[in-house]
Amino acid sequence: MSETRTYIVSGMTCGHCVASVTEEVQELGGIQAVDVVLETGLLTVTAPSVDDDAVRAAVEEAGYQLA
Amino acid sequence: MSETRTYIVSGMTCGHCVASVTEEVQELGGIQAVDVVLETGLLTVTAPSVDDDAVRAAVEEAGYQLA
Repeated sequence: MSETRTYIVSGMTCGHCVASVTEEVQELGGIQAVDVVLETGLLTVTAPSVDDDAVRAAVEEAGYQLA
Repeated sequence: MSETRTYIVSGMTCGHCVASVTEEVQELGGIQAVDVVLETGLLTVTAPSVDDDAVRAAVEEAGYQLA
């Protein structure tokens, strides 16, 4: 069983930004998939249970914000 | 004795870009100082002798171009 949630990240400008967000989210426990699209800011996270607060914290740790 | 040369780097969009350019230029031999300004693209390099071709190669290795 897994759950997929989608967020919008604001402030990413380049591939380095995408890599930073991807890395921070991957460091959350139990993540099965992370996809980040620079052009749209779309962040898609798949895990057994996706924790919005944890995702938000990871995005902020990378230096960005959820829109 | 040292020499300082200034270049313009195009394509940097964020602090990660600045860090990448700084790191690649620092890896050139004998570099005494590197300064990169995101807003203007100004790259200032100080070394006993600054090699334009080497600086250009370092900038390109980081994924950017000299303007």
